[in-house]
Amino acid sequence: MKILLYIILVTILLATSSARYGVVAQQSKVREYRIANEHRILEEFVTLLSIPNVASDHVNIRRNAALIIEMMKRRGLEPRLLEAGNSVPPAIYGEWKVPGATRTIILYAHYDGQPTDPKQWAGTMPWQPTLRSAALEAGGTILSMPKPGEKIDPEWRLYARSASDDKAGVMAILTAVDALKAQGIAPTSNVKFFFEGEEEAGSSHLGDIIRDQKLLEADAWLICDGPVHQSGLKQVVFGVRGDTNVDLTVYGAKRPLHSGHYGNWSPNPGLILAKLLSSMKDEAGRVTIAGWYDDVAPLGETERRAIEEAPHYDNELKTQLGLARTENAGKSLLELINEPSLNINGMSSGDVGALARNVIPTTASAVLDLRLVKGTDYQRQVERLIAHIRKQGFNVIDHDPTDQERLTRPLIAKVVHRDGGYNAERTRMDLPVALSVIAAVQATSAKPIVKLPTSGGSLPLSIITNNLRTVTITVPIANYDNNQHAENENIRLQNLWDGIETIAALMTMPNASSAK
Amino acid sequence: MKILLYIILVTILLATSSARYGVVAQQSKVREYRIANEHRILEEFVTLLSIPNVASDHVNIRRNAALIIEMMKRRGLEPRLLEAGNSVPPAIYGEWKVPGATRTIILYAHYDGQPTDPKQWAGTMPWQPTLRSAALEAGGTILSMPKPGEKIDPEWRLYARSASDDKAGVMAILTAVDALKAQGIAPTSNVKFFFEGEEEAGSSHLGDIIRDQKLLEADAWLICDGPVHQSGLKQVVFGVRGDTNVDLTVYGAKRPLHSGHYGNWSPNPGLILAKLLSSMKDEAGRVTIAGWYDDVAPLGETERRAIEEAPHYDNELKTQLGLARTENAGKSLLELINEPSLNINGMSSGDVGALARNVIPTTASAVLDLRLVKGTDYQRQVERLIAHIRKQGFNVIDHDPTDQERLTRPLIAKVVHRDGGYNAERTRMDLPVALSVIAAVQATSAKPIVKLPTSGGSLPLSIITNNLRTVTITVPIANYDNNQHAENENIRLQNLWDGIETIAALMTMPNASSAK
Repeated sequence: MKILLYIILVTILLATSSARYGVVAQQSKVREYRIANEHRILEEFVTLLSIPNVASDHVNIRRNAALIIEMMKRRGLEPRLLEAGNSVPPAIYGEWKVPGATRTIILYAHYDGQPTDPKQWAGTMPWQPTLRSAALEAGGTILSMPKPGEKIDPEWRLYARSASDDKAGVMAILTAVDALKAQGIAPTSNVKFFFEGEEEAGSSHLGDIIRDQKLLEADAWLICDGPVHQSGLKQVVFGVRGDTNVDLTVYGAKRPLHSGHYGNWSPNPGLILAKLLSSMKDEAGRVTIAGWYDDVAPLGETERRAIEEAPHYDNELKTQLGLARTENAGKSLLELINEPSLNINGMSSGDVGALARNVIPTTASAVLDLRLVKGTDYQRQVERLIAHIRKQGFNVIDHDPTDQERLTRPLIAKVVHRDGGYNAERTRMDLPVALSVIAAVQATSAKPIVKLPTSGGSLPLSIITNNLRTVTITVPIANYDNNQHAENENIRLQNLWDGIETIAALMTMPNASSAK
Repeated sequence: MKILLYIILVTILLATSSARYGVVAQQSKVREYRIANEHRILEEFVTLLSIPNVASDHVNIRRNAALIIEMMKRRGLEPRLLEAGNSVPPAIYGEWKVPGATRTIILYAHYDGQPTDPKQWAGTMPWQPTLRSAALEAGGTILSMPKPGEKIDPEWRLYARSASDDKAGVMAILTAVDALKAQGIAPTSNVKFFFEGEEEAGSSHLGDIIRDQKLLEADAWLICDGPVHQSGLKQVVFGVRGDTNVDLTVYGAKRPLHSGHYGNWSPNPGLILAKLLSSMKDEAGRVTIAGWYDDVAPLGETERRAIEEAPHYDNELKTQLGLARTENAGKSLLELINEPSLNINGMSSGDVGALARNVIPTTASAVLDLRLVKGTDYQRQVERLIAHIRKQGFNVIDHDPTDQERLTRPLIAKVVHRDGGYNAERTRMDLPVALSVIAAVQATSAKPIVKLPTSGGSLPLSIITNNLRTVTITVPIANYDNNQHAENENIRLQNLWDGIETIAALMTMPNASSAK
């Protein structure tokens, strides 16, 4: 088996080695184009980032889609919206057909972003893209947009929601198209484009959008999302964790009570929630819910080796993040992202800080994030969670309790499984198309790239492979310290520049006929 | 001892029985005045409630003080500000000297209110006083202010911050003055007035304001604050719990992290906080911090009997509040407020609801409310709390951690003891002045009034008795379901009307020469 793989790889390398000089020459032409057009690229990106893009914001999400349609029309990519209903963010499809190409790839990115509270941003606003001279944490100061002719420093950061996650993907893909067209380089595959508008809201309608779509047939979906390795090395990732969210609420009295007049008599929902959450993980951070780790599919030999070969960056990360310890001590980050997780995204009861009052709040709430790995099913994990909550003595309901329920049930937990969960996905690292992608990305990098069986993050890739006969491979471009999903999201410009070259390399990767 | 008390009580009753008809006649004159002036009283009250009154809001708190000064000047009460610095809310002093009076009482209320988030109010705003036809929870609808001549229903509720707590006290006191003056009734004591402006912020400067103030000498301070009994019965309360607040923060990584890429590797501060809070109380809600209940001064015989005689209202309350169980099961509310408590006023980490994101937050915070009873010292309880946190493995600091601290200490808790704590206070129920107050309030009520050794709530009464040779007795007027300290605070108009009669009765209480 190993020998067979070796032969395939050598075949591809031989098939491509004659094109090797060509690859390097292409890369420098793409770079040349980018260097000559940085101001225009930045301006177009800022326009795209200026439209609020939370999936539930129906009006603005369609303004994003309309702008992207226009951007793709300008590039001759024959765009169209793929719809799943008026109130659902549309996906955007486009294509660049190449006469004679025998392979088809789909380049995927998403244009929606995570919700955010503008008040939590430091000095800039989420949808008013702003340059800083460096990362905020490194003392980066706000810059005005560069005037034509003014030099653009690749270490500058552009701050905006989705600057990295994932309008950077949209922008890198469309700019790679520009570069190839401008330099007269044809792709080696038929290239299709698929920009999703609901990824950060859980891709609830992605299955509806792509089901039975002949349009979307392809040999592989190449997913441009997520960060490169923490060391700055480029990486290719063959899987993602699955993801689902649960809202949890527990109850005190029906109305807020004075904590003096009723304190230590009326139950405090904050305490009830604290005890319930505490019961879910041990001191080391290991999940104590029965069966949590039971269904995990073991890693294959290739995957285990890839993890061993990947740079182990835990100590550097601990220093950067100010951590004297990690959860599940003894296991590395790369090992742990191959296990299912349970995270408290947020919890709230009453107020803290200046608005805090001497009250017993009426409720306490938490939002839980469940990550799945190959083998674990998101519905089943939620069932295990609910069984655990019941075992702690709670009556579990899916609505705010009625008076009757309040008066007859000492402990009540409202558990709402949010829409839009999905399972993990993992593509075998030894498939021919996988080896082609690895070779193409490696060709753009002087340093060895990182190959990972799975990312810690999630994408709805299982929805794609469940609905279409294809595989998915993720090729991220963003800097790892991009504050993805949080306030002060940003992209380092060099990552965007490198990303354009990476995507161009995927579009022009040697057409080894054995690849899939 | 019992016989002596009995003799004193009989003496007072005899001394006052000849005045008994007079008391009833006075009460009906006060009522007559109120009925004729309800529109004017309401209008003046609305004006007072329209000024934001959070103690830290320096500009507005002085606007409140200026208005009250003006209100007192109109009544000839010779008001003046008592100051403890420019940035400290002033107290307001006034007096009504009565020729020949041998007793002096001080009527106390506070004009500041708890902070509040206007967004949490249902349909009305905290400083835009609004009438409802009944309590919000009972379906009360918004009414426009009654025009002259229009009937005012005593079951209407006025919604505004401090409508009950405690501008109702200021308003009832000043209106009682109006009523007595209008009807030509002289007080039986010299009456002094003291309106505090920093009570809800912990009365940090009350000691500075009253220390060595000859002005403030009095036989008793009568405190008009807090709610009447839950049954609606008037009550006289001889003590208050002490109170202090602690802010608690625990830490994860220095920046918010993607919960997929780092979840179950980077420590989650929400979980750390949940485990820490859980460790402080057992499942029944009993505080597990070592020594918490050690210093409690036992109740005397009179106090125990008063608790036994008071209406036990727990079952009705549980029904109203939707509670199937209470903390410390088996003990009644009245027993439990004679014990020190620990309440989670609020806790927060990341966001819940629509703003929730798949992140590991950087911090988790809680605000704790510690209530003290006679015998327990607030500084000492905070020391016990800190010792407990240390015992859970935390390094306790009073500042945000430095990088060095983060990297060397696996568990860090920032513990900040807020300014303004104070101890409990309890006046003996068998003092002559206590018996006079009981008799005066009882005379205004057809039903037996409730006498309680302590309230569950807190007032800085120990600061008064530590600085001045006097005693304090609390005579509350607000409805118990006033949402004190929370959103949707309100007063039932009948409680304000009754309060005016209660205060007038205190000002004219039979001048039993033996009373103190």
